[in-house]
Parts: sequence; structure tokens; C-alpha cells
Amino acid sequence: MIGAAIFDVFGTVVDWRRGVADAVAAAYAARGRDLDASAFADAWRAEYDPAMAPIREGARPYVPLDLLHRENLVRVLARRGELGLFDDAALDDLTRAWERLPPWHDSVAGIADIRRICPVAPCSNGSIALMLRLARHTGLTWDCILGADIARSYKPDGAVYRAACAALGLAPDRVLMVAAHGADLAAAQAQGLRTAFIPRPDEHGRGRAEPPGPWDFTAPDLIALAAQLG
Amino acid sequence: MIGAAIFDVFGTVVDWRRGVADAVAAAYAARGRDLDASAFADAWRAEYDPAMAPIREGARPYVPLDLLHRENLVRVLARRGELGLFDDAALDDLTRAWERLPPWHDSVAGIADIRRICPVAPCSNGSIALMLRLARHTGLTWDCILGADIARSYKPDGAVYRAACAALGLAPDRVLMVAAHGADLAAAQAQGLRTAFIPRPDEHGRGRAEPPGPWDFTAPDLIALAAQLG
Repeated sequence: MIGAAIFDVFGTVVDWRRGVADAVAAAYAARGRDLDASAFADAWRAEYDPAMAPIREGARPYVPLDLLHRENLVRVLARRGELGLFDDAALDDLTRAWERLPPWHDSVAGIADIRRICPVAPCSNGSIALMLRLARHTGLTWDCILGADIARSYKPDGAVYRAACAALGLAPDRVLMVAAHGADLAAAQAQGLRTAFIPRPDEHGRGRAEPPGPWDFTAPDLIALAAQLG
Repeated sequence: MIGAAIFDVFGTVVDWRRGVADAVAAAYAARGRDLDASAFADAWRAEYDPAMAPIREGARPYVPLDLLHRENLVRVLARRGELGLFDDAALDDLTRAWERLPPWHDSVAGIADIRRICPVAPCSNGSIALMLRLARHTGLTWDCILGADIARSYKPDGAVYRAACAALGLAPDRVLMVAAHGADLAAAQAQGLRTAFIPRPDEHGRGRAEPPGPWDFTAPDLIALAAQLG
């Protein structure tokens, strides 16, 4: 029996690409500039995995994702030759775009439904502070916040999934990892967790979700997943 | 401006003595025994601080409070010569009395009121698992769970308060520690946190709260504290 459901957040629960693009477009518009904001969001996101790699590998001490997001923003702006457009406070503010992302249409209702069945928590690479502010922005209610901060490492490092199960006081086979990404689910499965796949065809604006896989549950959205679990 | 309120839980939010006594009385009644259940609860709680001391001092690696509670229960039962009354499963079950404690009359409404003003989180010596189950039992809603598990030490070690502020991404002077215990507030204050004192005269069944102190806020209950903050 499932004792708790833990969730990937960026892409699975919220539409990071649209949220970041909207914030970037607004920041540029305020400076009298136009840009392809979705391409900027993609470029910012492309820095995400390389920035976490040295921490996963132990070559850099753990720092929360908020700091990596800010460093990555500086890198993207420098590459565009536009770093001069933003002072420190503006960089801080734009980095907080990740705290104000829109949920997918089913996320708030679906997670509330699942929460009536078992405890729910993010198991994201976002920090506790980031997840907390994002939850309050979207109206999501979690029972606790797990993920990178409590493991002091980043998914798909197995330590992150193990730390989540340990914090819940549950054996891994009683914990359900919910994600739109096969790599996340495969890493959770390797640690003994149960898995649920939610396709998110609009995550990258291509109308194409990741392919199905050998997961315990597959549902078109989180409301449907709640129905399967309940 | 306060950016988040963090709470002591045992004694401040829930009535551990009555909850534990009721669970102990029921467990003994099921075995055809009678006892002074409040005295048992006091004896169990008296083992709490000595059990944490070696972890605070670094002489024992961090283990969650759930395990200390179980070890302490065995110690109390052994001293009473009654360890034979309980098998392993019964010891596990009785230890979970700490997950099913009754809130004080104002706790659920007061914390909900404060949550409309700023994020709220327990900063307890209880583990994430224990705090999560207790919240679901009582109907409390937290924004995240901070405390011993994320610091891997026990209050009043200053590291626990610092870890809570770091996880919230807030400077200590923007975090309000709420407690019924002066020692907890003094330790938080020493780390630069703001402090709020809620007297709980019934915590030890003596009708006598701790004395007032040099705290930023003092309120008769959590509903009144919310009114002061809002």
C-alpha cells in the first residue's frame, strides 16, 4: 500500500517554461527590449543540469538551486551580451521567477485529491524555500517538503530518493514517485520506489511528451492518477 | 517584517501529556492493568532531554526522535518491571502515541490565522515523519517541516534554528520562533531570531505556565498571537 506520494515539480506540477518566459518578457519589456522569451527560458533551463553535475559528483559542496539559478541567469545574460541590463536587485528578482510558476490545469486539484489518500510532498531539486514560495504562489498544499535540500544533493542521485523515504519513515516500496520524466522515475525505481508517469506534452512547447515506460502507474494527469490510487 | 513563523510543537501546539497518558492508559487497560498514566507520561518525557544530550554533544550520531522515544519507553517499562507486557509491535504502536497528540484548543485555528500572514512551519525536535503524521492527525496545515531532522541535531543547539532560517532563505531577524518554553526562545534569540511566548499552564498539569520573559511578543494563545502579528 502506498504510504506517501512524492512529486517532481518543474515540468510535472508547474509549467516552468511559460512562467519563466513570461517573467523574462516582462523584465525585458520594462527595459524597452523585445526578445524570444521562450528561447531565453530554454537557454536558462539548459544550464540547469550542467550546474548540478559538480555537486552530484562531489566536486562542489551543496548549494541550493536558487543560487544555481542565479549563476545560470548571469551566464545566459553574459552570453547574450546583456548583463548590463540588470543590476543585482534585478537579477535577484528575475531569479525569483522560479518561485512564481503557473501550475498545470490539473495540479492543484489532483494533488489535493491525492492528499486525501496519503501524504504528499515535493521531491524536487528546488530548495525548501523555493518549493514553499512556489506552493504559496500556486495554492498547492504539501504535507512537508522533501528533495535536494534535505539530501544535500541533486536528483537523479539515488541519495535524494533515499533521504525522502527516510524522512517519511517509510520503506521505499511504500513511496510513490510521480514525474513527467523517465530519467527521474528510473532513478527512483532503482532505489526501490514505486513510480507514476504523467505525460506533459507542453513542457517544452513541442506538443510531445516523453514516451511511456515500465512504471507502476501511468495517468493522463494528476486528477486521473488520484482516481487510480483511490 | 516577519517572513515566517516557526513553532515548538510538544507543549506549545499539542498537549503531549494528556495524549501520551491516554494512549498509555488504553494500552494498559487492554492488558487488564491500571496505572497512574500521567505519571507514566511524565516519566517517559523525563527521559527526553537526557536522550538527546549525547547527540547534541556529538557523542552519538543523529537518530530521529522516534527512535529515542522508543528507547525511552523501553527504559521506563524496564524500570517498572513491566517490559514483558509489550512485544515489539506493541512497543512500536505505543511509541506512535506521539503522532496522535491532541492540539490545544486554539492551535489549529491560530496557526491557520498566522499562515494567512506568513509561512508557518514546526521547528520541533520531532522528526519530519512524526511532525507530518501529527499534523495530519490534528488537522494542522504547515508550509514545510523544519527542525531536528534537517539540522541533524536537537534544540536548543543553535544549529537547529540556523538550519531553519537557512532552509527558509530568510535572515534570522525575519523568522519568529513561537514557544511555551523560555529555554527554547532564549536559544532562538541567541541566534538572532524574533520570539513569541505562549503560556501553556496545563502542559505539566500544574496550572502554572513558565514566567514571562524578554520576548518580542507574548500572547495568551495562538489566535491572539495571529491578531498581534496581523
